[in-house]
This record gives sequence, structure tokens and C-alpha cells, in this order.
Amino acid sequence: MTQEQQLCDIGFIGLGVMGKNLVLNLADNGFTIAAFDLDNGKVVDAIAQDRLENQAGGNRVVGCSSYTELLSKLKAPHLIVLSVPAGEPVDQVSASLIGAGIQPDDIVIDTGNSLWVDTVAREEKYKNNFILFSSAVSGGEEGARFGPSLMPSGSPYAWTRIKPIWEAIAAKVDSETGKPIERNQPGQVVNTGDPCTAYIGPAGAGHYVKMVHNGIEYADMQIICEAYHVLREGLSLSTDEIADIFEQWNQGPLDSYLMEISVEVLRHKASDDTPLVDLILDKAGQKGTGLWTAVSSLEVGAPAPTIAQAVYARSMSSFKTLREQASHLLTAPDARSYNSDEQQQLINHLHDAIYCAKICAYAQGFQLMKQAEQEHGWKLEFASIAKIWRAGCIIRAVFLQSITEAFERNEELENLILDEFFAQQLSKYQASWRKAIAEITLMGIPVGALSSSLSYYDSMRSSVLPANLLQGQRDYFGAHTFERNDKAKGKKYHVEWSTTERNIVEI
Amino acid sequence: MTQEQQLCDIGFIGLGVMGKNLVLNLADNGFTIAAFDLDNGKVVDAIAQDRLENQAGGNRVVGCSSYTELLSKLKAPHLIVLSVPAGEPVDQVSASLIGAGIQPDDIVIDTGNSLWVDTVAREEKYKNNFILFSSAVSGGEEGARFGPSLMPSGSPYAWTRIKPIWEAIAAKVDSETGKPIERNQPGQVVNTGDPCTAYIGPAGAGHYVKMVHNGIEYADMQIICEAYHVLREGLSLSTDEIADIFEQWNQGPLDSYLMEISVEVLRHKASDDTPLVDLILDKAGQKGTGLWTAVSSLEVGAPAPTIAQAVYARSMSSFKTLREQASHLLTAPDARSYNSDEQQQLINHLHDAIYCAKICAYAQGFQLMKQAEQEHGWKLEFASIAKIWRAGCIIRAVFLQSITEAFERNEELENLILDEFFAQQLSKYQASWRKAIAEITLMGIPVGALSSSLSYYDSMRSSVLPANLLQGQRDYFGAHTFERNDKAKGKKYHVEWSTTERNIVEI
Repeated sequence: MTQEQQLCDIGFIGLGVMGKNLVLNLADNGFTIAAFDLDNGKVVDAIAQDRLENQAGGNRVVGCSSYTELLSKLKAPHLIVLSVPAGEPVDQVSASLIGAGIQPDDIVIDTGNSLWVDTVAREEKYKNNFILFSSAVSGGEEGARFGPSLMPSGSPYAWTRIKPIWEAIAAKVDSETGKPIERNQPGQVVNTGDPCTAYIGPAGAGHYVKMVHNGIEYADMQIICEAYHVLREGLSLSTDEIADIFEQWNQGPLDSYLMEISVEVLRHKASDDTPLVDLILDKAGQKGTGLWTAVSSLEVGAPAPTIAQAVYARSMSSFKTLREQASHLLTAPDARSYNSDEQQQLINHLHDAIYCAKICAYAQGFQLMKQAEQEHGWKLEFASIAKIWRAGCIIRAVFLQSITEAFERNEELENLILDEFFAQQLSKYQASWRKAIAEITLMGIPVGALSSSLSYYDSMRSSVLPANLLQGQRDYFGAHTFERNDKAKGKKYHVEWSTTERNIVEI
Repeated sequence: MTQEQQLCDIGFIGLGVMGKNLVLNLADNGFTIAAFDLDNGKVVDAIAQDRLENQAGGNRVVGCSSYTELLSKLKAPHLIVLSVPAGEPVDQVSASLIGAGIQPDDIVIDTGNSLWVDTVAREEKYKNNFILFSSAVSGGEEGARFGPSLMPSGSPYAWTRIKPIWEAIAAKVDSETGKPIERNQPGQVVNTGDPCTAYIGPAGAGHYVKMVHNGIEYADMQIICEAYHVLREGLSLSTDEIADIFEQWNQGPLDSYLMEISVEVLRHKASDDTPLVDLILDKAGQKGTGLWTAVSSLEVGAPAPTIAQAVYARSMSSFKTLREQASHLLTAPDARSYNSDEQQQLINHLHDAIYCAKICAYAQGFQLMKQAEQEHGWKLEFASIAKIWRAGCIIRAVFLQSITEAFERNEELENLILDEFFAQQLSKYQASWRKAIAEITLMGIPVGALSSSLSYYDSMRSSVLPANLLQGQRDYFGAHTFERNDKAKGKKYHVEWSTTERNIVEI
């Protein structure tokens, strides 16, 4: 039988970094793939890479030079995976597939970081042409290659077809320990453990959950960067000394992929032995998912200040020239020196600050999903979401096992900080966290994510907030009315504040 | 001549709190008004109020019972003012006016808090039916009655007709001192000074500027509330003692309408002499403009953490039950007592913290407008915007005179913190500001707006931020590339971080 006569299991469109790696992952797991990219060089490259890596020798990846050829090489009903940039490209490919004769029972899986509302609109738009399914992928290049975390949502029928494939290629977690099962070699396959994929819900829900994942990722990265900033600029430690501290932290509750790669980034040297990180311009890029998360948190009214601060920190970094000008104009606090005991103490406090801030960032992300679930009528399974983030994705960490357990204890948990384990952790470390923030505030190192997490904590544990004065102000200038704490909930009152009128009028 | 034969200058639709007061303001200034509301009781009430207040005796306000009647009672081309809630109602009224025969050269002014993109869309949508002009109004009830700040935008032709009316009813500022000229009695008119209105720009620009005004207002209110919270819960001062402190603060650079009404709110007593503010439920409402500002700041990449924190503080306050639960579970810091010197010192530091945080909140708002101006191709006059906010509006303050002067010194000023006056103020008070935040952090009182302002300050004056590590992380897991600080701007590099490869590849 010639290559042309064999029909492939999966069509794959878009062979960028993520796409190519997903293709190789699918191939390792025994699936045959018909691959297409507008840039034929990428198709040639993917096939060459597959031949190089495939020790069994068969051709697992077949190249296609058109959408029509792609469809002709697939088993029916067709199953097609897209790995193209979010936005316009998804619609362009969809239109091309319609032109090439895709059928209503064919399935197209969008694996990009589409905005969730676009996904909802697209499912509706294309429903007479094909079944649009979405499944965000987290884990970067390496996750895509050796096991990502996958957040599928859309038609339940489509999911029955996709499930075995997704469970095969996803990262796996040891069911006993909750830790990732290692897989890092071409040809290697892991068939045991819990796969990091689970059906999330109707159209849009998966992309929403992935968006929040990325929002949390922004916060987590920013928290680590702020700690680095304190150690580097505040305590004048060397990059290697900071790497040592991070490495040690990575043994405890902060054990995570992001901490691990931060160590590797800090240790990496340029050819003249300069730490490479010192050559990188301090201007952060962003692709939108973090800001969408912050926007959504504002819109649904689920406070996520740590995530918003992380997004702002990225935009702040882009004003390099303004910052340089301002650094000459604006006064910094007087530098103080730390003896080695004081230094070690601050480092210890900083550790606890990171841990607590991280708990708050995740608490914000999960509360946001809970709020969104109510808003959009989804039924999200939070224990299951935490579970599939334990491996494969960028925010994977020991920590996610604790979150899984919290939601297993109580699926209705309104906020992680109410869980017995996290409440106990926060209570244990809050004093140390505070000392870190107070000290760093005096040092003049900006730690927006760390300190906004602490105000989040202090707000959330305040049975009384000063919103009474705020409602008084609003009623004063705009007759916006207020509720009373000594009367039935929901009743509204107004006062003629600028007079001495003592009567409180029920509206 | 009977009342029916007189044609009115202005048609007015929507006689809620703001609408009725704008009508009476217009009447005081010699304009005749044909008024309509779907609720006829409001029309009757406005007419009665006008008769009561009008010492000259003429009927300045004429009631109408339909849109058709309203049009029939106006001079042509018709000039109609809407004071209806933002959103759907504006389109409903527009449709009714079209049904009633409005003409293409008639002008309809939307004075509500419409979302600016809706305003842009509406101008286009109705351009063949009538000229939609927008003019946000700030100043609450009292501003509407005795002189608001008005932010008109849209067709320049329409502005030529509206300008004399707007200049008449707007608040006035003494040209010499920059201070508001008082007007607080029915029948009183102020014909001197600078009117707090100026043409802002094309459709949408005015509502955008008003939106940012409200975002700043959220921040300003939250900052005052946080100070109140520190004094009340942290230092256990009485409501009257806090009112005394605020009253004193209102003599210096914090002199503002919001501080002034906070004093009055705090002094107001219920019939049993309880401070009324103690009876108000600490659950804040919001109508959207603050969150739109925060959303816009995220979208255009102009960091506005103080504004976002103020919005989050309002949503945070709404989780009353969750907070009550959490207050039992989560540990607070040990309470400490302050002797009277320490107490006074913290109060002094707190004053400086409010002042600096306020500068940062305004800096964020103005930078946001600058960024939006570039994004949308507007040409905003920042000195003029600051000028029309000096009186009439909710954020009016002595402070706005300094902002006016900053933009008069340099219309291209990228951020207020770069202005010589504000840079000097921030530099002078930063040490004190820091001490306040550090102390309050240890106390456990949440001050998200005050402390995020300080991280904003410290970020903005940091020539180096830790975004280099962040870019290293992003390049590690996602091959997102980075720029180098030792190479030409804009060139992108990538490294194989997980190997010992020292080569930095230009992409």
C-alpha cells in the first residue's frame, strides 16, 4: 500500500513551534497525521523532524499542499486540529476548509488562545459547515511535544471522538503522588497515570478557563520577578546567589515549573560568562490573555488585583524612556545596608510573601471562574480543573495538588482562602509576609503583585470595609442611596447630607 | 401671546435628579425649556419646582406629553438635551424622536454616562436622522443645578450652537485664583470667570474624558476611604475626630470637594446621635464608568493600578458574607498601641500618603487619556481638560490648578510625575508616604489604592525593572524571544535555555 492510499487519523493545520510539537506528540502516540501549513517549508521541516525522531521508521506525518489535499487524506468524518494564531487566522482557515468541502459532521479543533467570546460566536457561525470544538493547550513548546495540559470544550459528541487522542497526548500525573510523570524523549509514551485533560463545558468555557490559567501565570511570573528584583537591586545579590535561593525555594511549597525555569534562566551564561539575564532588555511582551483575564475580573466583579498588577507591570516595563527620565527626577529612599542576619531574615520573609501572594493569585483566578460560571451558566468542576493543571501546563506545581484537594473537600468552595489548608497556611505566614512588604516598601523596590496580594488578603478578612463612607459620599453627591447595617437587606435609604436633617428616608 | 404660541429654546427629555436640575439651571440662565419624561409626574414636578423657584414669575419650563408635542414646541432647528440612563434608553429615545419627525439638522445632546464607543457608533447610526452630540456632565445633583463641568464632543457645527448655552450653565472659575466662583441659590447667575466647559474633540472623545474623570473620582474616593479606615480601625479614632482631621487636611493641598463632603458625611448624625456613617452598610455600588476606565487602561497599556484597585475595592466590599466568614478563619496581625506622638506621626504620614497617591491617580488618568488620544487620533488639550475640572465636577480641587499649570508649562508632558512641580512634591513626601504604607501594612488595614500608588511611583522611577527575567521565562517556555540591552532596539533574540548553548541567536 502506498503512502497516498493510507488515510490519516488527524488533519493538522499550522506547523509553528506549538503545531509541529503537537504533531510529533500525536505521532509518538501512534496517530497518523496529514499536515498543512501556508508556508510549505514548515511542512517539509515537520516531516524531516518526524523521520529523524521516529525510530520505528514508518512515515507518521504526511505533507499536504492544499486544504483539499488535506481533506482527501483523512478518514471520514474528518478530525482536524488547528494551531494558528488567535483571531482572524482561525476564520481564514475555517473559510478555506469550507471552500475545500468540509462536511457538517467533520470536527475542527481550535487549539490557539482564542478569546472565549469569539469561540462562542464561531461555534454558532460555523455550525452548518462543521463542528467547531475548542481545546486550549498549555505547556509551551515542551508541553506540546511531551505532554501538554489540554482544556477541551464544545460539542459533547465531538469530545467522545477526541477524548482518546487527547488522553494519549496529554501530560500524565501519578495518581498516588499527584506529581508529573516524566516524559522528555522522542518516541517515549506514557500510558499510565491521570491524563491532564478533562471536558470543561460548552463552547467558550475551555478558552475561558485557559484564559484564567494564563492570568494566573502572569501573576505567578510577576511574583517571581519581584522577588528577583528585591534580591538583585535591594540586597545586591549576584545572579548566581539568587539562583541558589530560588533553587532552595523550589524544594518546598514553591516547587513549580516557573521557579525551576527561573533558576535555569538565571544560571545561563553568555559566551563571555556574563549572566545572560543581564543582557536582556527589561521590556516585557504580552499576547493578551493576561489582560483579558483582568478585564473579565473587572467586568464580572471578582477582584483579581494580583493579576491586574502583573498585567500593569508588563505595560509599565514598556515605558523604558519615561522611566529613565523619571529615575533622574524622583527621589528614592536612602539606601540601607543589611548585615547577614538581617539579610537572611528578609530572604525568609520574602519566601513566605511569595507563597502567600501565590495562594491569593490562585484564589483570585478560581473565584473569577466561579463568578463567570454563574454569569454564563456553565458548570465547571474546579477539582478537575486544578487536577489537569498539575502537569503539562506552565503553572504546574506541587501547589496544584493542594488546590485539587481543597475542591475535593468542598466543590462549592467560594474562595480558596476559606479552605482549611490554605486558611491555615495564610494565617501561619501572614506576619512574615507583612514584614517583607513593610521592609521592601521602605527599600523602594516596587512589588505591586506581592503587596496587592496582601491588601487582597487584608480586605477579604475584614468583616468591615470603609465602603460605608464611600456610600455616604455617593449618596451625598449623586443621591445614589445606601443600605443600612441595622435594617433588612436590600432596602435603600437617602439622606439630605448638606442639611442638618436627621431623617433617613427609605426610598 | 399664550404659552402654546411661544417656541422654546431647548427640548429636554428625562427629568430624573440630574435632568430636573439641569432644566432649572438652564431656566435660571434665561432659556426656555420644553420638557418631557415618560413619567408625567416628573414633568409636573419639574414645572412646580420651576414656579416655586422662579422669582421673575414667567413660565420658563413648559410640559409636554409626547415626543411630537416636544418637537412642536421648539424653535427650529431643534436643540434637544437627553438626560436618560446610559445604554438602551438613549437608543429608545432616539427611535422615538425619529418617529416624531426629528430633522437631519436637529441636534440631540446625550448628557448621560454613555460608553464612549457607543457614542461613536450612535453618531454614525443616526447621522441621516439628526446630529447626535454628546456632552457628559459632572458634578452630581448640585453641579447640575448650580453649575456642572461639561465635556462636549462631536460635530463642531453643533458646538457653535451649544456653546453659549453651555458656557452659561457651566460652573465658573475665577480667572485669577483658579478657584470656583460660588453659586448656590435658585435664580442666581454667574456671568464672569472661566466657564468649566470646553470642546473636547470628535464623537466619543468627550465621553472618554468623562469616563477617565470618573475613574479618577473612584481612586480619589477610595484613597479617602482607606485613610478613614486606618484612622477608624487602626487608630480607633471616633468619627468626629476623623472629621476634625479631614477638615484640617482640607485646608492644604488636599483641599477638594470630595474631602469637604467626607467631613460632612462623617459629621452627620442620626436622630439618636449615632454618626450616620456607622449605620451605612459597607457594600459599595458602582455604575460602570470606573470599571470602563480600568478596562481601557489595560487595553491601551497605560498602567492605572490605583484606579483598578478602587474598582476592585468596590467589588470586594460586595462580598460581605465571604468576608465575615474569612474574618473568623484568617489571622490578623497582633494589635499594637500607639502613644499620642506616634499616633500624630502616623496621621502626618498618612496625609502625605494621600497626597502622593492622589498625584499618582491623576498621573495615571492623564497618561491614559494621552495613550487613548494616540490610539484614536484625537487631539486632546490636557491643560483645558484640567481647567474645566477645577469647578463643577466631583473631583474639583485646588490640585487641578496645579495640573492645569503643569500642562500649560508643557502640553506634551507624557506623565504628570515628570512635571517639575509634581516631581518635587513626590520627592519631598515619598519618605513619609513609605513610612505610612509600611506601618499600615504591619497594622493589617487594607490600603490597596494607597499602596498600589506607591508601587506605581517606585516602578515609574525605576530605570531597571525585572522584566528581563520575565522575558527570559517567556523565551524559555514559549520561544517568545527578547530584545537585548546591549544591541540595537527592536532586534529579537532567542536562546536554547534548557541546554548549555551559549549562542544567542538573532531571530
